Amino acid sequence: METMKAVIFDGSLRYVEDYPRPAAGPGWVRIKVQLAGICKTDLEIMKGYMGFKGVLGHEFLGTVESCDDESWIGKRVAGEINAACGRCDWCARGLGRHCSHRTTLGIAGLDGCMAEYCVLPVENLCVVDPDISDDRAVLTEPLAAACEILEQLKITGSERIIVLGDGRLGILCAWALRTVAGDVTIVGHHPEKLDIARWRDIKTAAGMEGMEPGADIVVEATGSGGGIAQAMDLCRPRGTIVLKSTVAIQGETNLAPIVINELTVVGSRCGRFPDSLKMMRDFPDMPLERLVTGRYPIDAAEEAFAEARSGPALKVLLET
Amino acid sequence: METMKAVIFDGSLRYVEDYPRPAAGPGWVRIKVQLAGICKTDLEIMKGYMGFKGVLGHEFLGTVESCDDESWIGKRVAGEINAACGRCDWCARGLGRHCSHRTTLGIAGLDGCMAEYCVLPVENLCVVDPDISDDRAVLTEPLAAACEILEQLKITGSERIIVLGDGRLGILCAWALRTVAGDVTIVGHHPEKLDIARWRDIKTAAGMEGMEPGADIVVEATGSGGGIAQAMDLCRPRGTIVLKSTVAIQGETNLAPIVINELTVVGSRCGRFPDSLKMMRDFPDMPLERLVTGRYPIDAAEEAFAEARSGPALKVLLET
Repeated sequence: METMKAVIFDGSLRYVEDYPRPAAGPGWVRIKVQLAGICKTDLEIMKGYMGFKGVLGHEFLGTVESCDDESWIGKRVAGEINAACGRCDWCARGLGRHCSHRTTLGIAGLDGCMAEYCVLPVENLCVVDPDISDDRAVLTEPLAAACEILEQLKITGSERIIVLGDGRLGILCAWALRTVAGDVTIVGHHPEKLDIARWRDIKTAAGMEGMEPGADIVVEATGSGGGIAQAMDLCRPRGTIVLKSTVAIQGETNLAPIVINELTVVGSRCGRFPDSLKMMRDFPDMPLERLVTGRYPIDAAEEAFAEARSGPALKVLLET
Repeated sequence: METMKAVIFDGSLRYVEDYPRPAAGPGWVRIKVQLAGICKTDLEIMKGYMGFKGVLGHEFLGTVESCDDESWIGKRVAGEINAACGRCDWCARGLGRHCSHRTTLGIAGLDGCMAEYCVLPVENLCVVDPDISDDRAVLTEPLAAACEILEQLKITGSERIIVLGDGRLGILCAWALRTVAGDVTIVGHHPEKLDIARWRDIKTAAGMEGMEPGADIVVEATGSGGGIAQAMDLCRPRGTIVLKSTVAIQGETNLAPIVINELTVVGSRCGRFPDSLKMMRDFPDMPLERLVTGRYPIDAAEEAFAEARSGPALKVLLET
């Protein structure tokens, strides 16, 4: 049996060198992974989220190594993380990322990309232009999650928008929204992250103090249970809250403001990779590389995860 | 000073006979109240909601008694409950019910209608057709709250819709939705209320057991904190939850399904009276009278409130 290096979670985080190398079935490809990003979801999985066990990781840049269709071999690719069944109504509507039979790379039923190799359906692949750097390309997945907001909401450009949270996802949401709207403010608690978040004329605010309520759109990307209460405080009547954090609300939370002010709360998850790659091409000045705050070889995965868990980290990469 | 009979809340519920009779300022009218309905919101106010003190009540049928414009005098009317400032952006957009300077009949800053007289701005009045019975007309306000859903959502008619909650509001939502969609199910825990809810081919279900998930639209009208979790269980990916209950969520609630399934949660409150009265005209077979389960003279307000608080009650009326 061929083996490979991999970062697995089986109750604890472990780096192993003898993990079975995956085989690509019909319609699937095997990818030689070059870079993998550590995401908040990986940290949640280590606390039990989704009950996932296996190879971690769902953000990657790699090269196609084997495929039925030889024209793919050698291509530099990113890949959508949901492997849909291709046969249900959702798949027929192009929304395979909601297919109830789906497996998800490194999250549910499918080994992830923190390894020398991973496998995905060929239709999940997106070729990455040579003029997009490695560090930008590995952010295709999280930027796609930010682009998803633009697919879900009708944004005219004149809205006042507030993004809560200065982590990776909050910053990417602010940048993506700034491509279509003029008035974007990001609220956080980390001066160094707010510095990184500055692009074009995005405004930054350290904490809620002095924040003007009445925003048209509030994006909740704090990753903490209290974010929705702050979002309700800042949103105007009939405004929209975009929920990006998957954490639970703790204790008593009064959702009455949603009813009284007739707010719309839109849950928002993964997005389309082509939209993300197009945004990278259209906005070459978007400073995505700034988000990469750490870089480790795959055999130092434990240190990499420790850094990813630390306060100042934004995006920590593993090199395979 | 002229006085009147009134039901007031000043820390406890009291019937008084010497409450000052309100005067109608310029642009306002004084209404002789005939019938007033007891609403869940009145019961919440008695627990401290909105910090309101004064004459209770915001659902009524009455006759205009004084008005600058004499053509109104003697008209049989219902009235919108929010008294907007008429000068702000919300008012200019016809959304005075979100005006931040508004007062609200029997809820905020304005004495209510459980009295011989109440006052409202003249533009809040809606004349009630003589062919609409008194018991139907006094339900104009709660039916308007149900109609609000039809204003907020684009309903094509082919959606599968579930209404959670067999109280007054749940039943009215089910009936209003059945006027525009074919597949409506109401879920409750009270067999006698589910019997009352049957109209056209609305389906009823006693409890969640056996409920098929995957609904396009779920209306949360349980009035209890656990309703949103049930709504998330029943709603399909990218479906819509309409939130009608203003109660707080207790304990830990995992809102992650909103994000993972990209649900849209729409808060929904008061609606337009003309829509409600039009629905009564267009659907004379809608069995609104069935909801009236109790009727008391105003001096028996304490008994009436005790009945409204009891399990089997739907709508309890006060006659002034």
